[in-house]
Amino acid sequence: MEPMTYVGLVAGVLTTISFLPQAIQTWQTKSTKDISLAMFLSFCVGVILWVIYGFYTNNIPVLVANSATFLLAFSILVCKLKYG
Amino acid sequence: MEPMTYVGLVAGVLTTISFLPQAIQTWQTKSTKDISLAMFLSFCVGVILWVIYGFYTNNIPVLVANSATFLLAFSILVCKLKYG
Repeated sequence: MEPMTYVGLVAGVLTTISFLPQAIQTWQTKSTKDISLAMFLSFCVGVILWVIYGFYTNNIPVLVANSATFLLAFSILVCKLKYG
Repeated sequence: MEPMTYVGLVAGVLTTISFLPQAIQTWQTKSTKDISLAMFLSFCVGVILWVIYGFYTNNIPVLVANSATFLLAFSILVCKLKYG
């Protein structure tokens, strides 16, 4: 693997796991007042496009990171839609 | 430009501008209770690494998108630290 691929993987791990504490907080508190619906709608669509981009350009860090990010961000979006 | 570069650019635009409505909402309401500090700390560090990755791999969508994302996400982090 290229050295920069490791930097990309660490970047991907950090930006991906960053959504975990947000998701846990949202699941536990069910409070989503301060979370922007427009943010998570636009973000989820964008992340799906990153997955497509990573897949077709064979860019492993982009593909792996965004696949996991999508699952977490989408769960926050579902909470926002459910609990307003 | 490769066709997939356009997909990457649209992905970058969406995931980047998604932070704008969140930033505007946070600036206006000064309410950050439902926003996770751990998320924005980890996210900002990760995005800086994506900028480094994009720069050294000459990946324009990753570089441009994450540079702008950092500015918006960092401003939300500052609000979270300031308004708790």
